[in-house]
Amino acid sequence: MKSNGLKDMLGRVRLTPVDEAQSLLLRKLSPLIPSTISCTLTEALNRVTAHDILSPEDLPPHPRSTMDGFAIRAEDSFGATSTMPAYLTIDGEVKMGEMPTGRVEKTKCYRIATGGIVPEGSDAVMMFEHTIPVDEQMIEVVKSIGVGANVINRGDDIQKGGLALPAGHQLRPQDLGLLAGLGIQEIEVFAEPKVGILSTGDEIVPYAESPPAGKIRDINGITLAAACESQGAVATDYGIVSDEEESFLGTVRKATEENDIVLFSGGSSVGMRDLGERVIEKLGSPGILVHGVALKPGKPVLIGLCDQTAVFGLPGHPVSAMVCFELFVKLAIKHFAGLVHPHSGRQATVRARLDRNLNSAAGRLDLIRVQLQDNAGDLPIATPVLGRSGAISTLSRAHGYFFIDETSQGFNKDTEVEVHLLT
Amino acid sequence: MKSNGLKDMLGRVRLTPVDEAQSLLLRKLSPLIPSTISCTLTEALNRVTAHDILSPEDLPPHPRSTMDGFAIRAEDSFGATSTMPAYLTIDGEVKMGEMPTGRVEKTKCYRIATGGIVPEGSDAVMMFEHTIPVDEQMIEVVKSIGVGANVINRGDDIQKGGLALPAGHQLRPQDLGLLAGLGIQEIEVFAEPKVGILSTGDEIVPYAESPPAGKIRDINGITLAAACESQGAVATDYGIVSDEEESFLGTVRKATEENDIVLFSGGSSVGMRDLGERVIEKLGSPGILVHGVALKPGKPVLIGLCDQTAVFGLPGHPVSAMVCFELFVKLAIKHFAGLVHPHSGRQATVRARLDRNLNSAAGRLDLIRVQLQDNAGDLPIATPVLGRSGAISTLSRAHGYFFIDETSQGFNKDTEVEVHLLT
Repeated sequence: MKSNGLKDMLGRVRLTPVDEAQSLLLRKLSPLIPSTISCTLTEALNRVTAHDILSPEDLPPHPRSTMDGFAIRAEDSFGATSTMPAYLTIDGEVKMGEMPTGRVEKTKCYRIATGGIVPEGSDAVMMFEHTIPVDEQMIEVVKSIGVGANVINRGDDIQKGGLALPAGHQLRPQDLGLLAGLGIQEIEVFAEPKVGILSTGDEIVPYAESPPAGKIRDINGITLAAACESQGAVATDYGIVSDEEESFLGTVRKATEENDIVLFSGGSSVGMRDLGERVIEKLGSPGILVHGVALKPGKPVLIGLCDQTAVFGLPGHPVSAMVCFELFVKLAIKHFAGLVHPHSGRQATVRARLDRNLNSAAGRLDLIRVQLQDNAGDLPIATPVLGRSGAISTLSRAHGYFFIDETSQGFNKDTEVEVHLLT
Repeated sequence: MKSNGLKDMLGRVRLTPVDEAQSLLLRKLSPLIPSTISCTLTEALNRVTAHDILSPEDLPPHPRSTMDGFAIRAEDSFGATSTMPAYLTIDGEVKMGEMPTGRVEKTKCYRIATGGIVPEGSDAVMMFEHTIPVDEQMIEVVKSIGVGANVINRGDDIQKGGLALPAGHQLRPQDLGLLAGLGIQEIEVFAEPKVGILSTGDEIVPYAESPPAGKIRDINGITLAAACESQGAVATDYGIVSDEEESFLGTVRKATEENDIVLFSGGSSVGMRDLGERVIEKLGSPGILVHGVALKPGKPVLIGLCDQTAVFGLPGHPVSAMVCFELFVKLAIKHFAGLVHPHSGRQATVRARLDRNLNSAAGRLDLIRVQLQDNAGDLPIATPVLGRSGAISTLSRAHGYFFIDETSQGFNKDTEVEVHLLT
């Protein structure tokens, strides 16, 4: 549908708005189901659940005390105060890690420590602090407590058959703790997304080599691979590929067959960009989805889908390439990671105050790199990092970025901005 | 100094405010210098630089074009417009990846693509879009451009001897890209912090075992280990240790000798807490720094420093243990990771609107777990996750948390809160 809209009536290429490009990409990816694997809990951190996980048992399996004190029948404390205490006889003790023996009768109690199993007959735990010992056998209770006070009941944490974790949930430390508590040791998760990375351009050499006069070291290869790793994807380096069409097509085809996502970068010149387009169209259908976006930096990005593989032609300038990674490639990685849970898309930001006036062209999204500086008591100060998108140091000096959207022509000094941290 | 303040005049234990506990911990850790190791760029993601890294060369090494067009002398374009164009003769072409031959003379120009090296004599690049071909040899220039237009000069990205990265900086993908661009392949970073983890309590068994009646599976061990891993620390599991003093002391001593940080959890009962205190005091000086904090959940935390090792006695309740990890253990991990750069401490948050009134006791910091729900157009809605701190599922269901500080007695419905995501 949108492919008809790539050019306007005068034959000029139409730049797609960023949000439109993002939703088109996600819509086209949605039928592709990532594969799943099985893993143990110690391998599961940051992996994504492939199915709903139901609890196989009640947690905790027995009612337990959450305080040090005495297991009582709550009604025996009703009306007790420091001037009118209730008197209870100590009739036993709960040993940690053992089932209590006997049962708590009326006006009696058992000693119990935090974590101890609440014995039959009792329905609440009176904290030590609210009791006064009379002798070895008896306590005064100086407070009235209700049924269930200081007790975590059987199944209070989670009940047998209850939803422990939904499908599409990225596993955090506490989620592993919950699964461990339920005795679940192996789970089904989505496989890590596989990303193939190529750099193109006759002027670049691998960064480990000493470049001859006229050439420079490849920056995008290692930067994009590390960005993939940060997102939990597995990156494979296909090296620096010539811009000769047959050879380029061959390597990209191999990469698309072996990965969920392919990134090639270096296509900033018109010739490279045309080559990138032709190759994406030849690799599979539907081919090119987005041909340039209304974004600075990052305008010349190509987004395509070749059969089962998302293919991105990223600008050669390192900053532009990383901005396109942040806004588009990350979405594809999340899709292939199986991250469908809504909160996974939420982005935390730091509020900061802009330290100067900033102009922006209406009709395009501007991504402004900033340094943040603490400002005792007040919001941090955001200082734009100036410099060209070819200069990787500007992205290295930046702590984060904020957006000036398509409808705005700029922000005034002291505007409050929401900074996405580059971590 | 603060150790005299652990008890008030009536002999009651004084709870330390959270911010005071944090700054005391950081002050006591500050003389301890973490060790360093050497690593290659492909191993360096998320590691922390041990020294300032200076650039060994200019980047880029030659002036390069940032556009497709013609390398010109800027003055030849001065005054040019579409009605009064300037005429330039095409005198050569810059080949990608090669040093240009010859030099650009007055009223002449060279063809150049993005990334090409700007030839001698020229000082700006005129974009194709602002030229009209006259014939094979000549172009019309329809725009006036200044010196340096569309050129990234030698050293514009970073100059030889300039600060590429400061010491104490956590390496992100773009930082690796910068180092790669400069030809730096091996760097000195701080070693990963080592954390030893013990669980105590006669009621717990390893999570992989089937607990006999009266016992439950260990939740804190795997949760804390995964939390350490998330923070880039290496966790070693010392298993479940008996609360018999000699045996407990022996294992904790071994752990303190082998790690930068030791965590033991399970000391929620008064007996275990006393044992934890005695052990920390016996292990080394200065011993206990903080004995309980004004925090809910997490009040009974013990914070100690035993010679070179930070020792934390965490509450046995899984949620309380993780809250103390978040507020105190993370700080110690960051210290031993060498993260001294100021922006590393900045926490991004999600602004949300509270969906109910919430009470809180003044004089203590309350950490409220919440679920977030999108609310088209408006701030997301924050719904507190109710439940006891013994229930790990409440932390698993939470998307994040916010604070109600010591001076507040609660928040009203619709208050805007800053939610820290639990990721």
